[in-house]
Amino acid sequence: MSSKETNGFYVPVIMIAGVGLIGGSLALALKQRGMVNQVIGLGRSRENLEKAKILGAIDEISTSVAEATRKADIIVLATPVGSMADILEEILPEMDRGKVITDVGSVKHGIVEQALDILGPLSSRFVPAHPIAGKEHSGVTAASDDLFQDHKVAITPSVETDADACKRIEDMWRAVGADVVTMGVAEHDRVLAMTSHLPHILAYAMVHLFASGKDKEKCYEMAAGGFYDFTRIASSDPVMWRDICGMNKEQVLTHIENYQETLGRIASMIEKGDDDKIEALFASAKSARAIVTERRKQNKDQSEAERQSGKRRVQQLVNR
Amino acid sequence: MSSKETNGFYVPVIMIAGVGLIGGSLALALKQRGMVNQVIGLGRSRENLEKAKILGAIDEISTSVAEATRKADIIVLATPVGSMADILEEILPEMDRGKVITDVGSVKHGIVEQALDILGPLSSRFVPAHPIAGKEHSGVTAASDDLFQDHKVAITPSVETDADACKRIEDMWRAVGADVVTMGVAEHDRVLAMTSHLPHILAYAMVHLFASGKDKEKCYEMAAGGFYDFTRIASSDPVMWRDICGMNKEQVLTHIENYQETLGRIASMIEKGDDDKIEALFASAKSARAIVTERRKQNKDQSEAERQSGKRRVQQLVNR
Repeated sequence: MSSKETNGFYVPVIMIAGVGLIGGSLALALKQRGMVNQVIGLGRSRENLEKAKILGAIDEISTSVAEATRKADIIVLATPVGSMADILEEILPEMDRGKVITDVGSVKHGIVEQALDILGPLSSRFVPAHPIAGKEHSGVTAASDDLFQDHKVAITPSVETDADACKRIEDMWRAVGADVVTMGVAEHDRVLAMTSHLPHILAYAMVHLFASGKDKEKCYEMAAGGFYDFTRIASSDPVMWRDICGMNKEQVLTHIENYQETLGRIASMIEKGDDDKIEALFASAKSARAIVTERRKQNKDQSEAERQSGKRRVQQLVNR
Repeated sequence: MSSKETNGFYVPVIMIAGVGLIGGSLALALKQRGMVNQVIGLGRSRENLEKAKILGAIDEISTSVAEATRKADIIVLATPVGSMADILEEILPEMDRGKVITDVGSVKHGIVEQALDILGPLSSRFVPAHPIAGKEHSGVTAASDDLFQDHKVAITPSVETDADACKRIEDMWRAVGADVVTMGVAEHDRVLAMTSHLPHILAYAMVHLFASGKDKEKCYEMAAGGFYDFTRIASSDPVMWRDICGMNKEQVLTHIENYQETLGRIASMIEKGDDDKIEALFASAKSARAIVTERRKQNKDQSEAERQSGKRRVQQLVNR
């Protein structure tokens, strides 16, 4: 069965703590596909939850984590990282082996440790996940039911994670159109440091330098398409990225150090006029980027083929 | 008169040395607008010049710089930087005060010095220019007549540059849809180091690091939209960028140094857990990037308004 089929995923009651862009989009995606009966939303802002209800993301607003946990089959933690410990504490008394808890955080090791600390043996019901999707805008008003379509979701179970819980969460993410990739916790935090955390920091640093120089006005005037694309990710939420730097501190610092070493080597080549080496490094980077482009295209083509194949199957069923 | 009007620009004979993406697009743009009678193309590759002729970019292929110079009113140097000195030497005997020479290079101080050295007093006819436009693909087959539409062109005259020559080149670039920005030579090389040269080097360095690590396979798998946009400029021509690093060595090294210092400060904040400082730096970068976005929007709106205004004026003329 292809990873893109809905695989008949269904959950009677899902609880979403933190109905923002990610939590809200997951809710909309499940509702739009008729895969959930009831969505219970929790969060700090009553106003935001009311909006979420009006938008059709959630059915019920709850102010009690325990109450909502009791009713829920799947619990999704999508709040800012600082709230996690408290929520887990409140979940614990109502948690049982029939339920599954998962999260959506950008860094895995911290929440995995917290879940182990607080839930104890029941942490086997916790499936760490990271949907790699986003928009420049945040909050439930930016949420959309197709946010995860053709996007990657990393799932990072440990040996203790129950296989059925893991499958439940994999099925959920596939059902809303995502590609599930399983990885180790440490592996995830290293890989995402490279593919996401470091680039964001580099972009923030570039824009900060750009806006601080003495030629600032002319720089604003002459900044063109290349600068614009390169710095798009510096439009990301400063609070979220401050937290990611804090949560993935070790990997982020290692990657910054490695980057500075690479940049230093390039500076040295330029200083010495080592044209061949400079060209070789740039050329190898260009080739590597071409592989990234090729993979994106392959993923898009594969998704499209699966969609067409799914349509044909539906058509065959209809035609019988 | 708005800077976007064609201002009746016309040149009988233009010589383009190096009919690649930029030279070819300028030729196509002038031809498409009926602003040139004859385009003479020169270059190292006969095959490329034949292609340029078939594509309608050039009317005549010449193998003699002197011969072409004699016929030309405007001479555009659009070859790789290494060829410039030889070409200027061959231009000199046929150069006179009725002609204008210009270039399209990404770094200005080198060509300005070469022109002064080789052309002597006639260097007052040389107008250094830099059209900030490009595509991932190079060569005349990628050329298009609208490449410069709404793009910036930096003109960097010195006190010696003849005003009429400068105006000629400004008019030419405005006629093909560009926004002309006048700057000093050193100022240009500093500003472009910030807005363009440094970002390209940073992107090359990021991709190089990405493709060299032990988690390479998983990195390729998990690289998403943010990484893709951030690294787009690492698809640029390695030879061209090797040359830019060489030509603008002093500014590039200064900017890399300043960038390393900024990155080091961020690493230090992360190491110390200085959340407030990290958030403040990221937030100020986000605000600065929003200004870049706003300016792009303003430029687009202004261009569109001028086009509509131009259309109305034409309509009024037609309706008389």
